[in-house]
Amino acid sequence: MTQTQHNLQSVQAETPEGTAPAGPTTGPLTAEELQLSARNHSMPLEAMRRDVTPPGLHYVLTHFDIPDIDATSWHLLIGGAVERSLELSMAALHKDPAITVPVTLECAGNGRSLLSPRPISQPWVLEAVGTAYWTGVPLAYLLGKAGVLPSAREVVFTGADAGIQGGVRQRYARSLPIREAMRADVVLAYSMNGHELPPQHGYPLRLVVPGWYGMTSVKWLESIEVVTAPFTGFQQHVAYRYQDSADDAGTPVSRIRVRSLMVPPGIPDFLTRNRTLAAGPVLLQGRAWSGEGAVTGVEIGIDGAWLPAQLEKPLGGFAWRKWTLPWVAEPGEHVLSCRATDATGATQPLEQNWNYQGMANNMVQQVRVTVA
Amino acid sequence: MTQTQHNLQSVQAETPEGTAPAGPTTGPLTAEELQLSARNHSMPLEAMRRDVTPPGLHYVLTHFDIPDIDATSWHLLIGGAVERSLELSMAALHKDPAITVPVTLECAGNGRSLLSPRPISQPWVLEAVGTAYWTGVPLAYLLGKAGVLPSAREVVFTGADAGIQGGVRQRYARSLPIREAMRADVVLAYSMNGHELPPQHGYPLRLVVPGWYGMTSVKWLESIEVVTAPFTGFQQHVAYRYQDSADDAGTPVSRIRVRSLMVPPGIPDFLTRNRTLAAGPVLLQGRAWSGEGAVTGVEIGIDGAWLPAQLEKPLGGFAWRKWTLPWVAEPGEHVLSCRATDATGATQPLEQNWNYQGMANNMVQQVRVTVA
Repeated sequence: MTQTQHNLQSVQAETPEGTAPAGPTTGPLTAEELQLSARNHSMPLEAMRRDVTPPGLHYVLTHFDIPDIDATSWHLLIGGAVERSLELSMAALHKDPAITVPVTLECAGNGRSLLSPRPISQPWVLEAVGTAYWTGVPLAYLLGKAGVLPSAREVVFTGADAGIQGGVRQRYARSLPIREAMRADVVLAYSMNGHELPPQHGYPLRLVVPGWYGMTSVKWLESIEVVTAPFTGFQQHVAYRYQDSADDAGTPVSRIRVRSLMVPPGIPDFLTRNRTLAAGPVLLQGRAWSGEGAVTGVEIGIDGAWLPAQLEKPLGGFAWRKWTLPWVAEPGEHVLSCRATDATGATQPLEQNWNYQGMANNMVQQVRVTVA
Repeated sequence: MTQTQHNLQSVQAETPEGTAPAGPTTGPLTAEELQLSARNHSMPLEAMRRDVTPPGLHYVLTHFDIPDIDATSWHLLIGGAVERSLELSMAALHKDPAITVPVTLECAGNGRSLLSPRPISQPWVLEAVGTAYWTGVPLAYLLGKAGVLPSAREVVFTGADAGIQGGVRQRYARSLPIREAMRADVVLAYSMNGHELPPQHGYPLRLVVPGWYGMTSVKWLESIEVVTAPFTGFQQHVAYRYQDSADDAGTPVSRIRVRSLMVPPGIPDFLTRNRTLAAGPVLLQGRAWSGEGAVTGVEIGIDGAWLPAQLEKPLGGFAWRKWTLPWVAEPGEHVLSCRATDATGATQPLEQNWNYQGMANNMVQQVRVTVA
């Protein structure tokens, strides 16, 4: 047998830096997508049995490499359109008042691999989500310390992670409008679920913006700059946009669309993940969330007939809400679904809502079960 | 646009339970492989900068679902060919003498997706590996308490994780020969890197067998049975074997073959992961390990010319060993490789050593870098 890293190599050789990636495809998964899938990880659906998702179960997307930061020499810089620039050590940040917020984070590209044609990027299936308690200093408090000038429009957050995307050499950076940055629940977090941030979640400090897709919550945060004009960095202006086509300037992705997922009942087949379940009563359960308003209802589809699930007490803020539905499983093949609605009246679509980058696919999940 | 979960559904519908999975293929990645890749996760290569791999960076393979175990009611059963059966609570196990061992675990299927033809299973690329300090009770101590009868041949370990594989309904179970089970460094671990086991690593108790591929280290351990005949469970007798073809009974996979990986230098392109590096001095680094003997050398290939790397002090036991090599990067395109040798004289192959299940692929890694 001969050397067969050729699959990956040939793709790499054919994609010179500086060119846009290939557009959406109906073709099979590429070696590049597989590489991304191996690097990044999603949340096994059974993790939704827990209110809180521990590291390793919570989804992670890293655009570039995970930086290896020495927290003892690290400083956060706050500058731009402020009365006084600040340079803060971790020790200084730990002396500031802290808040803890429960937050469901979801990748804006979640569900991308199920779209047709399929945009070429991280090929999430269903599970790029997770919920954690994030502890740290309210961003508004630090902006108050620095003194935001009246000319300020946005706040730009830059991480330590560097790389190339779409031909542009960059450090990962995103902005927030001032009104969002001043929300009481936006936190510069140094702790996840009561423990020091893991490396892959932004150690030693990250932004967490409840209600917005995960790209907003910049990890490995190094600088905060208040700016007087809209930020035009790659991750704001090119990536993370709702586009109809490559030529469409599009609109920015921001808040998380209403969505729900089910813990697949029964036991799985290793390869197919098809579920097998004993006939009789079973408690279906899952979680629902929205960044646009409280979850007000979840319906469970059983072979196409919809029944209202019971909603449990919310965890608070923009964290997911548990739902349950008792079901008496009868022998045969069944298709189970869940569909959430939020306070704005938005409901998950039954069919895909396609866009060029594969953003915010909140199409209803389907779980096939064999009851024997 | 129409509902497009059809990719996954069609594959599922065409693979009835109880049939063997498709054989190796030269075709594109299937939706089933992508689903597995989304569920399981590997170690981003930059995590090799650390001696120890934290949860979320350490690889995880789960055959079925991650069980949700209440440790307060959980018990470990020890029985079979022993003088006295034992039923032990977590509280009881914590009173027993504990050891801590540094262990590099690697999935036996690591590198599978690079094989041609490609066996259909979890499509690992390069990174299904990780190193942790595992703390718990020596297995030999508990076997001593139970009193192994002279007729004993193997010890069977059964986890709480249940599912279907290859048409066989099962709880995950593997055996070890008595002589391996009695090794001083084989541990029933309740702690990983000084913290309670995370759910995905086997909470509340798992087996850790240093030097063997990861399938041996049964997670969510519920029972230990000493047996007087070779164990013929699915994961021993069907899965995890070196086979030439479907009809070949094959030989069992056991110890980890010598292998090394490099932290890719420079910065990545998001999609291709191609590396870009500034000209000048750079310290190449990575890790090397073997379950068959100590790592005795690592050579670094730079455009096909091999240079010896410097080996750092071992962490001990069967944990990986850090290597470094200073390199002066000259402008242009380069291919970097690393190739380890162990005390048995085994060296990583430059070409694939194919087998039917895609086991133990320790072919040399290649990293393409552009120096500008």
